[in-house]
Amino acid sequence: MSKPKVFEKPTGFKDLLPESVARFRQVEFNVLECMERWGYDQIVTPTLEFYDTVGVASSIEDRKQFKLLDRNGKTLVLRSDMTAPIARVVASLLREERLPVRLCYHGNVFRAMEEEAGRDSEFIQTGVELVGDASAEADAEVVALAIACLQAAGVQTFKFALGHVGFLHGLFGEALKDCPDAQVELKSFLLGRDYVGYRNAIRRLDIDESRRQELESILRLRGGKDICEQALAVTADPTAQTAIDHLCKVWNVLEDYGVSEHVLIDLTMIGNFSYYTGLTFEGYAADLGFPLCSGGRYDNLLAQFGRPAPATGFALKTNRILEAAGTKDVYQPSRVLIIYTAEHRRDALHHAQTLRAESGNQIITRLIPDHTSWDAGHIDKLGDGRSRLEGVVYTDVIPFV
Amino acid sequence: MSKPKVFEKPTGFKDLLPESVARFRQVEFNVLECMERWGYDQIVTPTLEFYDTVGVASSIEDRKQFKLLDRNGKTLVLRSDMTAPIARVVASLLREERLPVRLCYHGNVFRAMEEEAGRDSEFIQTGVELVGDASAEADAEVVALAIACLQAAGVQTFKFALGHVGFLHGLFGEALKDCPDAQVELKSFLLGRDYVGYRNAIRRLDIDESRRQELESILRLRGGKDICEQALAVTADPTAQTAIDHLCKVWNVLEDYGVSEHVLIDLTMIGNFSYYTGLTFEGYAADLGFPLCSGGRYDNLLAQFGRPAPATGFALKTNRILEAAGTKDVYQPSRVLIIYTAEHRRDALHHAQTLRAESGNQIITRLIPDHTSWDAGHIDKLGDGRSRLEGVVYTDVIPFV
Repeated sequence: MSKPKVFEKPTGFKDLLPESVARFRQVEFNVLECMERWGYDQIVTPTLEFYDTVGVASSIEDRKQFKLLDRNGKTLVLRSDMTAPIARVVASLLREERLPVRLCYHGNVFRAMEEEAGRDSEFIQTGVELVGDASAEADAEVVALAIACLQAAGVQTFKFALGHVGFLHGLFGEALKDCPDAQVELKSFLLGRDYVGYRNAIRRLDIDESRRQELESILRLRGGKDICEQALAVTADPTAQTAIDHLCKVWNVLEDYGVSEHVLIDLTMIGNFSYYTGLTFEGYAADLGFPLCSGGRYDNLLAQFGRPAPATGFALKTNRILEAAGTKDVYQPSRVLIIYTAEHRRDALHHAQTLRAESGNQIITRLIPDHTSWDAGHIDKLGDGRSRLEGVVYTDVIPFV
Repeated sequence: MSKPKVFEKPTGFKDLLPESVARFRQVEFNVLECMERWGYDQIVTPTLEFYDTVGVASSIEDRKQFKLLDRNGKTLVLRSDMTAPIARVVASLLREERLPVRLCYHGNVFRAMEEEAGRDSEFIQTGVELVGDASAEADAEVVALAIACLQAAGVQTFKFALGHVGFLHGLFGEALKDCPDAQVELKSFLLGRDYVGYRNAIRRLDIDESRRQELESILRLRGGKDICEQALAVTADPTAQTAIDHLCKVWNVLEDYGVSEHVLIDLTMIGNFSYYTGLTFEGYAADLGFPLCSGGRYDNLLAQFGRPAPATGFALKTNRILEAAGTKDVYQPSRVLIIYTAEHRRDALHHAQTLRAESGNQIITRLIPDHTSWDAGHIDKLGDGRSRLEGVVYTDVIPFV
């Protein structure tokens, strides 16, 4: 026998088999219902967008975007995130809607991955955008909603880290006024959570010892609400101070939501999207090293689409949430087989229809040639109510013979 | 004021606003649940596939497929149908599964449309594939399931036309043995339902008058089960006779399903996919000129992926179904606004959480500066329990002030 041909999929693309799909659908349903309860209405945008508008506005690096040409020679992209398309919709189709607008989405996004990286090039994002509200209440609302969504998805133990791009921006701007290259270098160490690299880089800098200690001390600025007070003592830069003050307000609102046990402050955190302008946050499960959720404030993006407005939001990574939520609780319907001989077909098919309408079970029908040979050789009673027929197990086999 | 910039989408691509999304989700949920009850398990395949495998196997014309290059220079396509990807999965990931296999899917497919055509380049297809069963029972099962799905989607009045590619293939092969060009021409008139063009083309052919009448008579072969008997009298070609015999058997099973009132036979029907090999069918709503559903048997496709097996299935066009089902019955949750002043925030947010958990309503919270100015000027009682706040209508406004 010749070796069966293997049919590959493009790098980073996957098939999902029924059990995975059932788990995805359950999480999707619960999360979207949660978002709806908080007043967020779902919209759907196209998979393909023009590169010149949404592609350019996206925070995903250019080389990671899948591009193609349309018939007129214009460059299209497969959407690499959902925030830029939604900003486009708020500024065009929804431009007459009063702000604030609360929208949610659920869709696949695309990022070209290196063959070696072993990461997904297509994955599902479910998220929200709250456009038109610059307040700490708005920031806290999306964080509290992100927490509610992870709970709805069945993730038991998780923490959200809150940061603010203004803190490092102000601190570095003051401490390293004349060294823009060093600012970029230090931020990239923090983005990669390479704290050893960060410390070594600081030691190499030609700056005062007090500055060095100031820059090093921020690595300890991770913890509860008291971190805000510690941070105020580290820097007198007004941008950084404003950032800390805002974080403090968000924390207070989260306390009133009763969810501060799930939150910590991490002033070393840098959101991984260039468009963030204020609060950023990431949600982590107990034992997983990658975020299940990331979000933040992006007050400049809407202006790129001609409708300046503050905005904040987050995206959940559904496939990672499934890893965090584990395999429990997947609803598996019972599979019932109705076998029938030709002369009992009408009754058998009618009974199948009745069972489909009355029960939540899967009902499968099958014509058999005659009942004598089948009774003897085909149906294998497993003793716990289930039967096996030609290698397939059914919860029940109902004969019409 | 400058004219707002317009942000276009690529030709044939659309945004769906909340009301449309709610209707889509409702239909999707009902249809997928129906398919599951009939024993069909959902799978998900990637949006991008290799052109050399799935692109080539697809029945969609090459020029309508969106193509791009991956980093290794291989050509990728945005999937243009779901049948070819599912054949790939059945022949690879699921190759150890016993046949028959029942699978369903729900996903977006892509077909490049001409600017003038005004048709969608991206649309949702929901469908099933039954792989590994060549019987009339299997064909009848997918037709009966298609009927059940339209009913689940809320389409009230519809008809399914059944045809068989073997009938015209046999009839034309016999009557126009030496004129392959004429066969192609006549089939293309029938595919376009251009019966005038078909008649004129027959008149131009250099054939016997009896042949001409035979070819013309097939235009009358549309109706109930008696059409099969009429058709048997038209041609003695064995391929055509076998096709008619099979159609008759399928009809009998559909009678036993109790759904033959929704079915008619149309022997002039040509499935619009080149891979169909047997029964083909299309479902039409009362007043709409386009099919809501099309399907048929494709016994040769699986062999292209190295696992020869008979197969049959159908795809529903969800956006057309929404047109046919009308606008009724869309679930619209009530929107409740909780307003609060800063000192009552904890109680207000707690109450919001309680309402979200207990009711199916949308609960939105909002901080207001102080209650005196708001009582007076902002909330506009509409008299039917609803209130308007700054132009937005809420089912209820609950104050915590």
